[in-house]
Amino acid sequence: MSKRVKGFSHERDLVRRLWEYGFAVMRAPASGSKAKRVRYPDIVAIYRGKVIVIEAKTMKEDRPLYISGEQVDKLLEFANRSGGEAYIAVKKIGTGEWFFIPVEKLEKTQQGNYKLSVDHVHEGIRLEALISVVKSARKLTDYMQREH
Amino acid sequence: MSKRVKGFSHERDLVRRLWEYGFAVMRAPASGSKAKRVRYPDIVAIYRGKVIVIEAKTMKEDRPLYISGEQVDKLLEFANRSGGEAYIAVKKIGTGEWFFIPVEKLEKTQQGNYKLSVDHVHEGIRLEALISVVKSARKLTDYMQREH
Repeated sequence: MSKRVKGFSHERDLVRRLWEYGFAVMRAPASGSKAKRVRYPDIVAIYRGKVIVIEAKTMKEDRPLYISGEQVDKLLEFANRSGGEAYIAVKKIGTGEWFFIPVEKLEKTQQGNYKLSVDHVHEGIRLEALISVVKSARKLTDYMQREH
Repeated sequence: MSKRVKGFSHERDLVRRLWEYGFAVMRAPASGSKAKRVRYPDIVAIYRGKVIVIEAKTMKEDRPLYISGEQVDKLLEFANRSGGEAYIAVKKIGTGEWFFIPVEKLEKTQQGNYKLSVDHVHEGIRLEALISVVKSARKLTDYMQREH
């Protein structure tokens, strides 16, 4: 499988899980043209008007992830328009566990891109916690402050 | 152009217009497998937590449109999960104008599919009206009752 096809299969895994938890979920179309593609996040998940905007990544080894400034800008723009919260969802290859990290945790690099540290990934919110928080009235960021 | 490719170009036209009006908009991925495809509406448009779930159609001549029961069920399920409102968006070929018809206006056929009459299309809400209603606090269905 190509890297791109593998990426899609992880996205589909997350879409399927969110759907099973009762969310309305949509994966972005795989446009041939990159210029069109960047307007969308990878996944948008909605539960009764609460919107979660997701950029999905995978992590094989304990090394920081890098995300382009352009990707983060588009994620934030979509979140802003929709009134949603923007997350980087990281799947740990091996365990298959998903971690959700609010975009605010990203650190800007000198080149204008963003770095996500291994610690921030491990401090990320787990899928089940994300679900229960979205289904309750609390904000996810409140929950994270309580937890850590 | 094939019928399918033409359909996508009309969807993209609607996505672009909704985006220009400040909505977060996503078009469904064009899955090869129909079984996967039907879980998604054609388009989801969100404005600050208000969700519009859309099945897009085109109308060449003044003849009723038919929509499968399965498509309507999936549209309603997505609307229900997201807390959104479900519409059939009809583009009149020639004028290029879009009309939005709430799914409640569909009439069930004996075969379990749905019919959208020409009158209901012409009584549909125009794009600009849809935008202004979503951006205000009113429900779209209230607006339609006032208008007609």
